[in-house]
Amino acid sequence: MTRRPNQPPEELRVRRLPRLGHYDRASINAILDDALVGHVAFVDGEQPLAIPFLQARIANNVLIHGSTASRAIRALGSGARASLTVTILDGLVAARSAFEHSANYRSVTVHGRFRVIDDPTAKVEAFRAFTNKLIPGRWEEVREPSPHELRATTILAIALDHASAKIRTGPPTDDDSDDAARAVWAGEIPITTRFEAPIPSPRLAPMRVLDPSLARLVGRG
Amino acid sequence: MTRRPNQPPEELRVRRLPRLGHYDRASINAILDDALVGHVAFVDGEQPLAIPFLQARIANNVLIHGSTASRAIRALGSGARASLTVTILDGLVAARSAFEHSANYRSVTVHGRFRVIDDPTAKVEAFRAFTNKLIPGRWEEVREPSPHELRATTILAIALDHASAKIRTGPPTDDDSDDAARAVWAGEIPITTRFEAPIPSPRLAPMRVLDPSLARLVGRG
Repeated sequence: MTRRPNQPPEELRVRRLPRLGHYDRASINAILDDALVGHVAFVDGEQPLAIPFLQARIANNVLIHGSTASRAIRALGSGARASLTVTILDGLVAARSAFEHSANYRSVTVHGRFRVIDDPTAKVEAFRAFTNKLIPGRWEEVREPSPHELRATTILAIALDHASAKIRTGPPTDDDSDDAARAVWAGEIPITTRFEAPIPSPRLAPMRVLDPSLARLVGRG
Repeated sequence: MTRRPNQPPEELRVRRLPRLGHYDRASINAILDDALVGHVAFVDGEQPLAIPFLQARIANNVLIHGSTASRAIRALGSGARASLTVTILDGLVAARSAFEHSANYRSVTVHGRFRVIDDPTAKVEAFRAFTNKLIPGRWEEVREPSPHELRATTILAIALDHASAKIRTGPPTDDDSDDAARAVWAGEIPITTRFEAPIPSPRLAPMRVLDPSLARLVGRG
């Protein structure tokens, strides 16, 4: 298969709306790094599934993890064909016609097969990536995984060799004839997420203060 | 296959963590109705994919839509095996050990096959459901789909006959021995989403006010 440099193989081109396709690695990395959850597609028996996982990127790999006993983890770890998709909903798009209502979003899809990360040092590094993805700086505050916890966890990695992004931004593309006919509003309604006031575990010693990583996360640092 | 009343078939039982499984229809409906986006899993050639769609529920069916020319829509409309998963991230779970860090979430998976909704009245009803799912009350303000727009859109429905939910709530399940050893905080950090100030389309006549549906959505109604 011949293809231009820096272009994805044909099966990964964004077909329907080429103007939405973004293939540069910086765009792809930024979207992956902004999203906590990815949906991993694979076939279980004959049933296609999309299972949500916390995902964290290290260089050219996206990592997921799960219990060694998990059916999905075992299927993916055996090298089944798979893909991982992250989708971030950035806003609603309101138009003058029902048809032109839409959403602004950023999405990345990675095609390939997962491989099991067995090396103990690499497994600890993966735990560090998951912990600091969830809460930046958290790894440095908490107990590292024990040998037993490492054995109970399978780390899977998929390479970013076949990845593509789709991004929609901006106002609706509705027809000016609808504006003449209907004096309704059109535009974008941005969606943001935020962290609310932390709820201490009931098993926590009273009056314990938030650790620095958590104080920074919720804007009290 | 024999099974107890109100229990899902074996292939839909939540295997790994039975305490997370919820099968009652009210739980499933509430999660579907709270989520805008679902990831639809299917196999394209030999490649498993998870593609994000706006989803809206009408009674016992979850609907998605797309261009009649879309490759995914055509594959799903031809009756390929599929599933739809929605995932809502409700919060982060911070623990005293890296291993027990987790997330609170609500997730629903529907297994089955999509069917094409051809009846023109049902197609208009589906457009109404999508529009009012995105922005409640919006359908009553905007132009309805034209015959051309209806022809350009395929509506697909999957029945809620094989659906299951997973819900994680509450504090971490970390070990009290970690608390004795490490004086770090543990608990939940809730995540919420909100709509920010609307951005008018540059093609909009100046000074047009927000319609009632949008004013309610952003809390200015």
